[in-house]
Amino acid sequence: MARLILVLNGPNLNLLGTREPAIYGSETLAAIGKRLKAEAKALGLTVDFRQSNHEGELIDWIHAARGRVSGIVANLGGYSHTSVALADALAAVALPVIEVHLSNIFRRESFRHHSHISLVAKGVICGLGGEGYLLALRAMNGLIGGDGQ
Amino acid sequence: MARLILVLNGPNLNLLGTREPAIYGSETLAAIGKRLKAEAKALGLTVDFRQSNHEGELIDWIHAARGRVSGIVANLGGYSHTSVALADALAAVALPVIEVHLSNIFRRESFRHHSHISLVAKGVICGLGGEGYLLALRAMNGLIGGDGQ
Amino acid sequence: MARLILVLNGPNLNLLGTREPAIYGSETLAAIGKRLKAEAKALGLTVDFRQSNHEGELIDWIHAARGRVSGIVANLGGYSHTSVALADALAAVALPVIEVHLSNIFRRESFRHHSHISLVAKGVICGLGGEGYLLALRAMNGLIGGDGQ
Amino acid sequence: MARLILVLNGPNLNLLGTREPAIYGSETLAAIGKRLKAEAKALGLTVDFRQSNHEGELIDWIHAARGRVSGIVANLGGYSHTSVALADALAAVALPVIEVHLSNIFRRESFRHHSHISLVAKGVICGLGGEGYLLALRAMNGLIGGDGQ
Amino acid sequence: MARLILVLNGPNLNLLGTREPAIYGSETLAAIGKRLKAEAKALGLTVDFRQSNHEGELIDWIHAARGRVSGIVANLGGYSHTSVALADALAAVALPVIEVHLSNIFRRESFRHHSHISLVAKGVICGLGGEGYLLALRAMNGLIGGDGQ
Amino acid sequence: MARLILVLNGPNLNLLGTREPAIYGSETLAAIGKRLKAEAKALGLTVDFRQSNHEGELIDWIHAARGRVSGIVANLGGYSHTSVALADALAAVALPVIEVHLSNIFRRESFRHHSHISLVAKGVICGLGGEGYLLALRAMNGLIGGDGQ
Amino acid sequence: MARLILVLNGPNLNLLGTREPAIYGSETLAAIGKRLKAEAKALGLTVDFRQSNHEGELIDWIHAARGRVSGIVANLGGYSHTSVALADALAAVALPVIEVHLSNIFRRESFRHHSHISLVAKGVICGLGGEGYLLALRAMNGLIGGDGQ
Amino acid sequence: MARLILVLNGPNLNLLGTREPAIYGSETLAAIGKRLKAEAKALGLTVDFRQSNHEGELIDWIHAARGRVSGIVANLGGYSHTSVALADALAAVALPVIEVHLSNIFRRESFRHHSHISLVAKGVICGLGGEGYLLALRAMNGLIGGDGQ
Amino acid sequence: MARLILVLNGPNLNLLGTREPAIYGSETLAAIGKRLKAEAKALGLTVDFRQSNHEGELIDWIHAARGRVSGIVANLGGYSHTSVALADALAAVALPVIEVHLSNIFRRESFRHHSHISLVAKGVICGLGGEGYLLALRAMNGLIGGDGQ
Amino acid sequence: MARLILVLNGPNLNLLGTREPAIYGSETLAAIGKRLKAEAKALGLTVDFRQSNHEGELIDWIHAARGRVSGIVANLGGYSHTSVALADALAAVALPVIEVHLSNIFRRESFRHHSHISLVAKGVICGLGGEGYLLALRAMNGLIGGDGQ
Amino acid sequence: MARLILVLNGPNLNLLGTREPAIYGSETLAAIGKRLKAEAKALGLTVDFRQSNHEGELIDWIHAARGRVSGIVANLGGYSHTSVALADALAAVALPVIEVHLSNIFRRESFRHHSHISLVAKGVICGLGGEGYLLALRAMNGLIGGDGQ
Amino acid sequence: MARLILVLNGPNLNLLGTREPAIYGSETLAAIGKRLKAEAKALGLTVDFRQSNHEGELIDWIHAARGRVSGIVANLGGYSHTSVALADALAAVALPVIEVHLSNIFRRESFRHHSHISLVAKGVICGLGGEGYLLALRAMNGLIGGDGQ
Repeated sequence: MARLILVLNGPNLNLLGTREPAIYGSETLAAIGKRLKAEAKALGLTVDFRQSNHEGELIDWIHAARGRVSGIVANLGGYSHTSVALADALAAVALPVIEVHLSNIFRRESFRHHSHISLVAKGVICGLGGEGYLLALRAMNGLIGGDGQ
Repeated sequence: MARLILVLNGPNLNLLGTREPAIYGSETLAAIGKRLKAEAKALGLTVDFRQSNHEGELIDWIHAARGRVSGIVANLGGYSHTSVALADALAAVALPVIEVHLSNIFRRESFRHHSHISLVAKGVICGLGGEGYLLALRAMNGLIGGDGQ
Repeated sequence: MARLILVLNGPNLNLLGTREPAIYGSETLAAIGKRLKAEAKALGLTVDFRQSNHEGELIDWIHAARGRVSGIVANLGGYSHTSVALADALAAVALPVIEVHLSNIFRRESFRHHSHISLVAKGVICGLGGEGYLLALRAMNGLIGGDGQ
Repeated sequence: MARLILVLNGPNLNLLGTREPAIYGSETLAAIGKRLKAEAKALGLTVDFRQSNHEGELIDWIHAARGRVSGIVANLGGYSHTSVALADALAAVALPVIEVHLSNIFRRESFRHHSHISLVAKGVICGLGGEGYLLALRAMNGLIGGDGQ
Repeated sequence: MARLILVLNGPNLNLLGTREPAIYGSETLAAIGKRLKAEAKALGLTVDFRQSNHEGELIDWIHAARGRVSGIVANLGGYSHTSVALADALAAVALPVIEVHLSNIFRRESFRHHSHISLVAKGVICGLGGEGYLLALRAMNGLIGGDGQ
Repeated sequence: MARLILVLNGPNLNLLGTREPAIYGSETLAAIGKRLKAEAKALGLTVDFRQSNHEGELIDWIHAARGRVSGIVANLGGYSHTSVALADALAAVALPVIEVHLSNIFRRESFRHHSHISLVAKGVICGLGGEGYLLALRAMNGLIGGDGQ
Repeated sequence: MARLILVLNGPNLNLLGTREPAIYGSETLAAIGKRLKAEAKALGLTVDFRQSNHEGELIDWIHAARGRVSGIVANLGGYSHTSVALADALAAVALPVIEVHLSNIFRRESFRHHSHISLVAKGVICGLGGEGYLLALRAMNGLIGGDGQ
Repeated sequence: MARLILVLNGPNLNLLGTREPAIYGSETLAAIGKRLKAEAKALGLTVDFRQSNHEGELIDWIHAARGRVSGIVANLGGYSHTSVALADALAAVALPVIEVHLSNIFRRESFRHHSHISLVAKGVICGLGGEGYLLALRAMNGLIGGDGQ
Repeated sequence: MARLILVLNGPNLNLLGTREPAIYGSETLAAIGKRLKAEAKALGLTVDFRQSNHEGELIDWIHAARGRVSGIVANLGGYSHTSVALADALAAVALPVIEVHLSNIFRRESFRHHSHISLVAKGVICGLGGEGYLLALRAMNGLIGGDGQ
Repeated sequence: MARLILVLNGPNLNLLGTREPAIYGSETLAAIGKRLKAEAKALGLTVDFRQSNHEGELIDWIHAARGRVSGIVANLGGYSHTSVALADALAAVALPVIEVHLSNIFRRESFRHHSHISLVAKGVICGLGGEGYLLALRAMNGLIGGDGQ
Repeated sequence: MARLILVLNGPNLNLLGTREPAIYGSETLAAIGKRLKAEAKALGLTVDFRQSNHEGELIDWIHAARGRVSGIVANLGGYSHTSVALADALAAVALPVIEVHLSNIFRRESFRHHSHISLVAKGVICGLGGEGYLLALRAMNGLIGGDGQ
Repeated sequence: MARLILVLNGPNLNLLGTREPAIYGSETLAAIGKRLKAEAKALGLTVDFRQSNHEGELIDWIHAARGRVSGIVANLGGYSHTSVALADALAAVALPVIEVHLSNIFRRESFRHHSHISLVAKGVICGLGGEGYLLALRAMNGLIGGDGQ
């Protein structure tokens, strides 16, 4: 049976494609989700793809993932740089986490260089746009011992 | 037709008038809203005046402003100093923003001296109490080419 | 008539007992609440024991405490280190606050050494596990002039 | 009888309109002064509008304002960021001060983010160009209990 | 047989009650000691209550506690913020330590925000005046498996 | 004709598999190279896989890549954190760069949190072991418009 | 023949006695000058007592002191904390300098804790009000081998 | 009857005259004490002149000064830069304090630029050698309303 | 017709030759000016060589240079490290600037390592004594397309 | 005649062998002293081996060493990191000093990375356990021109 | 006989002319070398013009310069900001050094503002492109007492 | 059979004896090597004594030491302060390392106070000149269980 991967999208990612395309690209979040689900299918995984602007809701979703999902791919947007609570939530559920950022956060403002999420993630992928999600899914498949064909 | 200005009030501003009046004054938020609407009318503008203690809800309201409002006057309270996500939301909708603070944040604790909002705002007005909102509205009118009589 | 104490629990504390027990212990939040209510009864106090992962909801609850509760015992978890808005809310309602942390935050990562809540609290108790809540309640009883038998 | 407001302009502001218009706009200082005097008249105020590149002269002018003017609107340019002496002068005369900057100093080089003047000002207005002076005058009118018609 | 708790008081605490009462309260150290001994008796513990202004003497007392006491309640006053040697002494004897401060050190000068003692203590209680000692004793009783009546 | 990707390995990576396997894993560099060449073949790419402990030699290789390779995948090990010269070399040849680290550098010593290479890279992948190289190759294929079968 | 001591007073000291008397006392600069001249006479010294708000004028006066005065007592007010040029001027003329501050600058804002003048002065006297000038004169008399009555 | 001034000398000052004379001068502590007593006599004061290398003993002496002395002249040597406990002791006894240093601490190593004692002293005199003690005594006489001959 | 170069000398440079010759050399400013004029003649340039200790006067001179001079060689002495206003003036007139320092400022006190002028200058020459002015003139000749003899 | 070397041991070293053996080893201070005396004998030196937990007593011992000992081997434990007074005492007696630490202080907490003693020592030996004392003695023998057989 | 000047070029300078011409200009290193040799001839000097990307080779060349060359003109590129070893090498050979940078390093990234080379150089020239080498050669001629016609 | 110790000397140490003898002494590296080999012989050890100015070569030598040498004595000169790669190499080969510096690096420039090598070394010896190597060898003999007669 296919294993479930939670893909979490944080604040402002719902505007993707229309928001500052020079930084974030012109692909919408829905398009990324669609590509990701196709990739998941090829790998024998299922993806639960969500977005919220509410830190508390994101924490609730992480909590709910315990015992239900095999890993979390997380692009928590601006909360990555400021939220101890979200990082604590990820640590609390003790699932493998791969952090994704669309842009290369190290070439942007200095307050984006630190991510609380990185401290609890297995790995980090940034600067590779929507493709980063697909790479994260492939890596997660390896981490959880999945065997996509 | 009158142009719409979103006036956003962040956490704890609902307690205005009763909360630490030595710092924030004794005028209530409702009273400021009323004064602001009168001023807006004089300038040929309409004001959508809101308050929330929820960061996520404030982000949602900013997103919803796209294509609907001409500018945003924002007093985001304590979130001003900590929220990358709110500043990203304001940058994402690409509307003119004027930041307002009731108190002079530079004469208070050092953690209030930095505002993420200032980095995406056109202008900043602080320390002038409720009057600051009216000045911001008048400035916004100029920025968006409004012509109040 | 028994005086009411609001006991606020912040993000991730709902997972207590199962979350990183080496750090946070194996007692659940419900168990702590039960012990706390027994202690309150012995002191002639009533306890309103709540948990939320939502910063905005926690702020709303603090606002609602004005005129209704005699003091607040607050373990705001990860928000303690990042939320100016929550500290502002506590200052705004002008009630006595005792801050509690289960773990000794000074022996953990450096970003946990600073708490915005400490700046508005009367006292701080940390590192003493669930027992810390009971000590806080006893101290609060003294602060508000309660007279447990 | 109309009350007098001293409007102080610091170094390089005499070049306004021709100096880096992308940052400072194309309106000359004289034009701003003219607009300001019209606004003052409407508010029943008189404006003493001055500019100097000399820190000592600006201090002398501030001293001379005691007992003669009702408030000071101050755009002290580059001295804002470096002059303890000017801030001390403003504190010494104990008049209400509103600080103005044409550009949003928080979006520029980091050495412009701190202003010694802000520490002694009632309020700060920045990023709103020449309009900022008019807003400051209006706010000053309120502070000093003036009553424009 | 009752277990022994060493209660250490550091520099200047001998002046308690007369020293800056706005910060430290008006209860004398002797009064606190008396209350503490009563509490100890109720808990089936014995208290060895001492004060010294000499860092070396405090270290000697800590060393002498090995094999003789079951835990240490320590309010090391100004040495808390500067003494690596005292913290090393506490670590060396490997006894449970609860740190107490009468005032909330986080609301005072920044050099009081860091305590070397916190790094070797099990828990920290501050801001609760003389009551803090009693809470610490009760917590220590739990830590060492004592059984007050 | 297959496009060429330079895969650069910096200091100490020749010891991979035997060096601190708890941090770096037990796969040898040769094994990674072999896996990478297979992946490259599948993507219609050719890989030039090299390792050197000499900063100058790595710079020479980067220079020689101009006009010969389509992109660079770079794991520059300890030089990542200290070498302005290597980052300048990568910027000078103006080829797309993807930076790889086997371990999650953000969970290690603070001097590993900054990479000069990140400032000139398109994207960064870390913490995913040898798999990180394969993800980088796949991402590079997308960046250079390659079309794996 | 009496030796000449230059006593330099910097910005805002002309307002002494009326300026923030809680910090600076109620004695005027003229009164201090008068007391100082009497003291000088008793010591067989002559005093050249000056004040300027102009940094350049203060530098010019220091330059003119070469070959004319035996020592400089300097209270350079706000310029003490910001002026490399004034400290360079004092170093350039190679005369003994005693720095005076009316208030204890170490108990005020942190930007007053550093003085460029201290780096070129023989000694520093602060916090002792107008009396500080007299002490400085007496000390200067010793430094230059003067022999008061 | 003559009022008593406690003159405290901290660590290493017993070596004065032989210790690094290029920094501290060649006058012995005894010689300074002798000069100081003569000056005290002229001012109608009595001096209690002491030295200790023991921080605890210095604290004890400060405590014992309460109700017995009218002011404290304190050169606490190396403890000035590191001892919160000594500064707390001085604050606790609430006597006027004048801090003295033989050398100009601002021209020496950076760790000597900060003194905890300065934060609780009325005034500070440094760099004027043994003469500094005499100036401090004269200033103390003024502070306590003494009337020398 | 020969093009005009403004050579600005800041505070204390009038003392050159007699001021700390170990740092600044024994050549007077007049001698440098003379050498510079000879060099200018050889290059077909004219030099306007000035010195002032007054920051405001230096700013005025820079303003007056607009439309009159082809470039500015500036040794602004101590103001280089502290004056935002002077750097703003140079930026405002938009002329090519070459900064000169007689001494190697990077081998001196740390507060001399930063120059506001460097941020608006085309190039910087330091540590080469009076010769630095001649090198700057030659470089300026190239920048403005002059063609000496 | 054999020359005398003072070997100073600071706070908590009396617990050696039983205190945190994973860090400090299991050899007692007495055992080290015995080994050291044997080594001294072989080198034709005499050793005065002492330990104190009292900073003031350690200072007194250093003072008493003048004219009596030829060099000082100092392991001042926790005082190394905090005591300006002890370093001043060592500088004051102008004897050669070799600093010893049992553990490698650079691999421990950051507050142990700085030693005030290192600033006045000829050399530093750390991380080599009790053997470090013997190496220090041998080095001291060379420094003082001793000639052990 | 002509004196020899070593002109050292560090990493990436071999790409000059093609590497980021907006920053570094379009002149090749060979062209600069050619211009420099012509200038040298005019000054009666000989130039040994070299480039290497290898830090060790640059150090070897500096060592080999002892007793063979009269001075070193050094543009060590990215190594300037990171190499203590290269600065030590220059200090070790005790030859006059003039540091050159093509771009104005103070207007670029903050990590380029510090140069270890500046700490051992006689002078620094930056921002003047290839011309900077020629100016350095002329200045070196003066330093070594050469007499170009 | 004698065990082999690798003694690594980093950049500029080949110039020892002639390079800044006030800092580094007048003994050549060859002389130290000779003394060291004699000492090794006495201890029943063999020494492989090498020097290189090339970071990469030093790394290669460290790698080659695996399985061949019993311990490494390392004086890596200027690379100690800047090279993560060299420290990583030492960690990778998992041999005991003793770090040596000829001078006391804590009394020199602040950039020499930190050594990356110290973080991976067993012990550190500095400030004792060439003798430091011999002490390191003796300590290494103890660490590896050698038994020199």
